[in-house]
Amino acid sequence: MSENLTSQIDAIFNPRSIAITGASDKKARLGNMLLYNFIDIGYEGKLYPINPDEETVRGLKSYPSLKDIEGPVDLLVVSLHPDKVPQVIEEAVEKDVKGAIIFTSGYREQGEEGRKKEQELVNIARKGNLRIIGPNCMGIYCPSTKLSFIPGLSKESGPVAFVSQSGSLAMYMAFAGKVRGVAYSKVISLGNACDLDTNDFLEYLGSDPQTGIIACYLEGVEDGGRFLRLAKQISKKKPIIVWKVGRTTGGAKAAGSHTGSICGSKEIWDAVFKQAGLIRVENVYEMLGCITALINPYLPRGNRVAIVSAPGGPSVSAADVCEQEGLKLAELTETTKNKLSEIIPNLGTSTSNPIDLGFTVASDNTLYSRSTDIVGQDENVDMVLVFDFRMDKELTEALIKSNEKIRKPIAVVTNIEQMREREIGGHFKSLDPEEMPRMLKRLYESGISIHLTEQYAAKTLLSLLKYREFLEKRDWEV
Amino acid sequence: MSENLTSQIDAIFNPRSIAITGASDKKARLGNMLLYNFIDIGYEGKLYPINPDEETVRGLKSYPSLKDIEGPVDLLVVSLHPDKVPQVIEEAVEKDVKGAIIFTSGYREQGEEGRKKEQELVNIARKGNLRIIGPNCMGIYCPSTKLSFIPGLSKESGPVAFVSQSGSLAMYMAFAGKVRGVAYSKVISLGNACDLDTNDFLEYLGSDPQTGIIACYLEGVEDGGRFLRLAKQISKKKPIIVWKVGRTTGGAKAAGSHTGSICGSKEIWDAVFKQAGLIRVENVYEMLGCITALINPYLPRGNRVAIVSAPGGPSVSAADVCEQEGLKLAELTETTKNKLSEIIPNLGTSTSNPIDLGFTVASDNTLYSRSTDIVGQDENVDMVLVFDFRMDKELTEALIKSNEKIRKPIAVVTNIEQMREREIGGHFKSLDPEEMPRMLKRLYESGISIHLTEQYAAKTLLSLLKYREFLEKRDWEV
Repeated sequence: MSENLTSQIDAIFNPRSIAITGASDKKARLGNMLLYNFIDIGYEGKLYPINPDEETVRGLKSYPSLKDIEGPVDLLVVSLHPDKVPQVIEEAVEKDVKGAIIFTSGYREQGEEGRKKEQELVNIARKGNLRIIGPNCMGIYCPSTKLSFIPGLSKESGPVAFVSQSGSLAMYMAFAGKVRGVAYSKVISLGNACDLDTNDFLEYLGSDPQTGIIACYLEGVEDGGRFLRLAKQISKKKPIIVWKVGRTTGGAKAAGSHTGSICGSKEIWDAVFKQAGLIRVENVYEMLGCITALINPYLPRGNRVAIVSAPGGPSVSAADVCEQEGLKLAELTETTKNKLSEIIPNLGTSTSNPIDLGFTVASDNTLYSRSTDIVGQDENVDMVLVFDFRMDKELTEALIKSNEKIRKPIAVVTNIEQMREREIGGHFKSLDPEEMPRMLKRLYESGISIHLTEQYAAKTLLSLLKYREFLEKRDWEV
Repeated sequence: MSENLTSQIDAIFNPRSIAITGASDKKARLGNMLLYNFIDIGYEGKLYPINPDEETVRGLKSYPSLKDIEGPVDLLVVSLHPDKVPQVIEEAVEKDVKGAIIFTSGYREQGEEGRKKEQELVNIARKGNLRIIGPNCMGIYCPSTKLSFIPGLSKESGPVAFVSQSGSLAMYMAFAGKVRGVAYSKVISLGNACDLDTNDFLEYLGSDPQTGIIACYLEGVEDGGRFLRLAKQISKKKPIIVWKVGRTTGGAKAAGSHTGSICGSKEIWDAVFKQAGLIRVENVYEMLGCITALINPYLPRGNRVAIVSAPGGPSVSAADVCEQEGLKLAELTETTKNKLSEIIPNLGTSTSNPIDLGFTVASDNTLYSRSTDIVGQDENVDMVLVFDFRMDKELTEALIKSNEKIRKPIAVVTNIEQMREREIGGHFKSLDPEEMPRMLKRLYESGISIHLTEQYAAKTLLSLLKYREFLEKRDWEV
């Protein structure tokens, strides 16, 4: 069954041809974008617009219906009215289509009647080998095989997979990846997940050679037991980051009308997170921060953090939040302190942890990377938190060198907002806005994680530690 | 004493002339920037560079020492080595200087010896009418009288004051204000606060007609009793936002080597926050979010929030975090739901709270403001949380109109990062990066608050409610 699932999903991610219902040259129509998505990313297989009222769409021959297409169709994208969906799914089964992405809404998120309609679609699909993604979803983004659910995404492939019950978050993360330098293996917007669900994709991604890190936005799963089994097993090989919503009555109700999900109790989910070594995040920034941190192959050996900062206030705050999260401020060795004293001026600074670099960085920001080098090599330090409001290109490159040397996690708190600010006064270097995504990408690729706040950085560092502890546990200890 | 304090601080904020020690044409020297700060913002009084080695600095006549300046000097900026500071402070007293900003570090943040050096300076100042800001500080930014501590700041004056024991945060907030549209009455970097301290400026700002909102970054205060008395009294007239650090052992130790502050126990500070109606924030984003929210004159009457969102996942998450924070999802009236049904398509959406606008906003984002209008007028709704990844100019203006109509707090969660992203694919409008600060300013001025995450928005809305409850309490109830 599992091998079958893998080959079924593989077929969806590697379609030789795609048919799009409602494809149109009219910009205002959804089918216009659903077709354009594949053109934009450079899909290399055959594209078949289906539209009975048009001869051609975007210069491609248009077909009155799916069954009028001569060649085989592997993937079908459906955005028809719910009443018209069963018929096209019937046709898809007849044509031996492998996968149908159903964009259409109006199913279980609207109640019991909608759930029945979904079951009807699944029943039809089961008559053949057709698997369904959706309904009420955006579909899939897979740069390696040039599939996309929105125009403008990166064509670059990478190790991160994102499985999402929210289409808007799937799109958001795909775009944010482009800004932050995160490259994806697959992004899947599941919607109501009437057929292929989070568990199925989790199982698939667990053995997908392209995928090294799995992130999920999750409202609920139908089969909690299977989720726990899969997650426990996959977590031992690949970290799984989970944003679980529907923890409150209001949130659960909202999830119900969003994707018809049953969220399950907070207590049960807390246990699942712990037993399966899942990494918990609670918004897009935490998720991006965790993803960028997990690219780094070096997990912390202990909870001792060194803080390197020029802004004094933020370094005090960072010390607070690290301790609140359960990290410990590392006691630096005398050797380290002496080495720091050699490079850091002795006024308006501190060579104790948190290291306060003082105002001198304004004229010499190599102090950041040189200090990171020194504290990172201290045996009492398991990880380094760097706070800098304004990263620049030189500092980026210097930190990357430090990172290669110290082989411990480095989490940088910086202000992406201000990184793009051009007018910052005569005495500060101004960053070319175009430079920022390049810097973020360089940092990401070298495994230096980027965070908006000291809270997110500390939480992420703790997550890395907890994940390492999970990896070291024997099965009976979990 | 209090009137005296006001007139003393007034004199510092309204200097007829400023002398700057170590002023230099050499860019690498700190005195270069300390002089340029005032030129850059357009200070209109007399500027006196002090530098015995130069004839002129930036075209201004340079003086060998303070006492060589012919006319009166109201404000003195000192960045000399600690050993040379006492002498210039002696000269300042002789010359009847009103205020000295001591940038120099190397005082109580380095231990007992440094504390004695500070006391020596205070003792000298007390022989005259000289008041000291610092040492180990950046000084003051006051756009109305054209004083600045860093080049490149806005010349516009506004109702927000920020008192900070961290110089870098003072600079950060001043710059961030420019991006976010926040205009300041005064920003004060106190440093070690050997003389004028947080309490003094709190008292001053409490009766400063330019100031309507006070924000503080606080490590510790010497006189906790006075702080509580002042804060309780001022909070009744002007909201006070406080970022208090040094809550953990590590944080307190870090504060000690930053500004030599004694942080006080967490328990005592928790009580102070409650009794004085202080609004608690824990990083720069929360602080900016709270400031932008408090510009709105309408505080919520109750805890019932309506959520308006097109992204479905984030709206579920927002429902969760609102309930976790202690807000309640408003039960919309049937009238409201019917009105919503008239404008929101019936597929892939929800007219129950949280309102899910679905994918249609991609082609018609007036749905946001029209829905906000409708739910905002529901008697069961006390405040509105709007979630939109991509604000644009039209939506900004439409929400401002809604805000004028509904007279309830509106908190917008949006992504300032993505607002600046140019390349967002053919089917989405791309925002001119220059447009963003203008939009943020418009929103800010109309009292619509902007938040990076649903967590910050919910926390801020709750803070508004708590502040309203504080305002309504009688003295004996506090």
